[in-house]
Amino acid sequence: MDNKKQNSHSHNLPDKNSLSYESLGASADKAGLHQILTDLNMEAKEKLFCQVIPDIAGDEDYYSFIHCDGAGTKGIIAYLWYKETGDTSYFSRLAEDSLVMNLDDVFCLGIPDKIILANAIARNSRLIPNEAIKAVIQGYELASEKLKKYGINIELSGGETADCGDTVRTLLVDATATGRIKKSNIINPANITAGDVIVGFSSSGTTNYDSHNNSGIGSNGLTLARHCILTNNYLKNYPEIVDTGLDLKSVYQGDYKVKDTPYPLNTSIGDALSSPTRSYAPVLKAMLEEYKEKIHGIIHLTGGAHGKVLRFIKNLKIIKDALPSPPPIFDLIKVGGRVQIEEMYRVFNMGIRLEIYTDAVTANKLIEISNSFGLNAYLIGRVESDSKPNVEIRLNEVNFTYQL
Amino acid sequence: MDNKKQNSHSHNLPDKNSLSYESLGASADKAGLHQILTDLNMEAKEKLFCQVIPDIAGDEDYYSFIHCDGAGTKGIIAYLWYKETGDTSYFSRLAEDSLVMNLDDVFCLGIPDKIILANAIARNSRLIPNEAIKAVIQGYELASEKLKKYGINIELSGGETADCGDTVRTLLVDATATGRIKKSNIINPANITAGDVIVGFSSSGTTNYDSHNNSGIGSNGLTLARHCILTNNYLKNYPEIVDTGLDLKSVYQGDYKVKDTPYPLNTSIGDALSSPTRSYAPVLKAMLEEYKEKIHGIIHLTGGAHGKVLRFIKNLKIIKDALPSPPPIFDLIKVGGRVQIEEMYRVFNMGIRLEIYTDAVTANKLIEISNSFGLNAYLIGRVESDSKPNVEIRLNEVNFTYQL
Repeated sequence: MDNKKQNSHSHNLPDKNSLSYESLGASADKAGLHQILTDLNMEAKEKLFCQVIPDIAGDEDYYSFIHCDGAGTKGIIAYLWYKETGDTSYFSRLAEDSLVMNLDDVFCLGIPDKIILANAIARNSRLIPNEAIKAVIQGYELASEKLKKYGINIELSGGETADCGDTVRTLLVDATATGRIKKSNIINPANITAGDVIVGFSSSGTTNYDSHNNSGIGSNGLTLARHCILTNNYLKNYPEIVDTGLDLKSVYQGDYKVKDTPYPLNTSIGDALSSPTRSYAPVLKAMLEEYKEKIHGIIHLTGGAHGKVLRFIKNLKIIKDALPSPPPIFDLIKVGGRVQIEEMYRVFNMGIRLEIYTDAVTANKLIEISNSFGLNAYLIGRVESDSKPNVEIRLNEVNFTYQL
Repeated sequence: MDNKKQNSHSHNLPDKNSLSYESLGASADKAGLHQILTDLNMEAKEKLFCQVIPDIAGDEDYYSFIHCDGAGTKGIIAYLWYKETGDTSYFSRLAEDSLVMNLDDVFCLGIPDKIILANAIARNSRLIPNEAIKAVIQGYELASEKLKKYGINIELSGGETADCGDTVRTLLVDATATGRIKKSNIINPANITAGDVIVGFSSSGTTNYDSHNNSGIGSNGLTLARHCILTNNYLKNYPEIVDTGLDLKSVYQGDYKVKDTPYPLNTSIGDALSSPTRSYAPVLKAMLEEYKEKIHGIIHLTGGAHGKVLRFIKNLKIIKDALPSPPPIFDLIKVGGRVQIEEMYRVFNMGIRLEIYTDAVTANKLIEISNSFGLNAYLIGRVESDSKPNVEIRLNEVNFTYQL
């Protein structure tokens, strides 16, 4: 989708474009990359949420997995916060983001036997000081300690920090998780079936295991979020926060700096946008231990967000007609960048970063378990038969459909 | 080290500075990062070449490992080659680089039981087309197929491609290797001892298992290499190849474009600088199978190059007094950037990317095995007792010493 003037909404923001993920060089569903794998005949045969391979220790009852993910462009928020306040603590949140992005993907497979995590940090050492790297490395320790209290054991095994300022403008924090999972523990989303209901789990607020209120932003869509919310004035002092090949007048169209606290947020923009991705692993572990047999599919709403499930289903219509109101950070993004509503639900989790597909009775049990962790969960929709995979979002004001 | 005028050498290059790794925002020995780990009490207790952890499958006789490394800023060379020629094939070399940088580090531990590899690619999708990503992904297949013929089995397990142009100017290709190794197979460089000799293995030329002549550059020092060799004229058309916060007059001080073939190279600058990192794994496997008990230490000369061994020894002097002449690419780098000779051997492998520490009799056997693969190997030095760890390089023209 190209940038285009949205005249019908232009009364308040006459000089601004409607921003989309693609206009900023990102892709919500990575259709092009999936096509490459199809061309190379490398798409996984069995569509589990993460790729699995024969067990590394040769045990027939196990799969092994190795999974890479990261904090994406969230490093730019931590960098701006550091530059504007001198505080390096937000860098440690990137560790939690990259850890959870891996961990929660892995837990969509089912309960793993063991998880080992290594990090890969790439930085521009002219701009990102050693103190920031120290905060990241400590962040992994803090995040894994917190999870350990809930029976989620992640063994940290160091990592690599590369100084490559000619390639990396500021900072990139990635991690890789490897481990094993019993075949009998595997949740295969091919089991999602007509008649299933969908439980959605909140990405925002404060659970019993959170130390801090969460905006819900997670680690997806940050490119769009930044350009919708943060001010173009930043480019004068911090040209390193943008792809300088873009039209610099149509980027960073927002009204805010990271220290601002605009209504309806009750915290700063910097705090909200760098809010660490919540792990659902403690809750998933409890739910899977009790209801594994009843759970048909677990979908982590990362790239592709509310369309994410499309790659795992056949001949089904997913109807989401009871989604809760999105947390305020998403309103600010939508308004600031005049983002189309269909784009919002395809790029952002909009307050629900995890879906479980199950029967109606089990759904209520899962919601009870979730609530016992202080985590809000909702019946957000249902599954029907159809001729091809599609997701229909029914909101108060508008309905729309995603297809592959 | 700051940039400073080298007046004594300025007769031919009056406007150029002496370039160093640090002046370009990179660090050869990553002393600052090691200090962070020391501060956090996170330096590994046992200094093996790669970090190991208790076995993922719980077998007392095994360690597990997970290791991250990548092609560094070599992506910039593949990008320039693509822009100047339309040829995307050099992108596939980045896959081999990132695979081998992991594989050869792991083989310094000894022969692993199994290796699984996943990739993590970060790109600016405005500049790096899907076709380039396809070439990278195919590159992993090609590199692993080639090694399989020599008994080196790497299971590829997909990866993640992130579009993040606000953070990544062009392209970053990283990989993570995980696997298991029998404790009885481990080579511990703490066994390096006074009286050992050092066998050095060539990073350049064409072995029996290479499909192409190798410049020897490997995947380290590319930041310095690019700025010493490539022309500043590139910045007009390709501002995306540099950290734009640097003084743009003192970067890319070289005389060449990627299609040039300056004396004494017999191939283009682009081909030489993107020459894929050679794996020593086939030769290491053969040597370890026969002489494991006699091998005291295996050092992969990556970051820190000829000073790399310093982190693994105590109270020893490493004397390298029979190093072969460096391959021509390093002469071009040295001359182009007026790089100090001490800096050259600390940043680049200078023609020797692997060292084995052993006794004199075994050394000759290892050289025989190496030669049987068409790989040149040399007795490059020896080990003596000393009061603290140091490496002395004795060249025809000059001697110098590295310390921690």
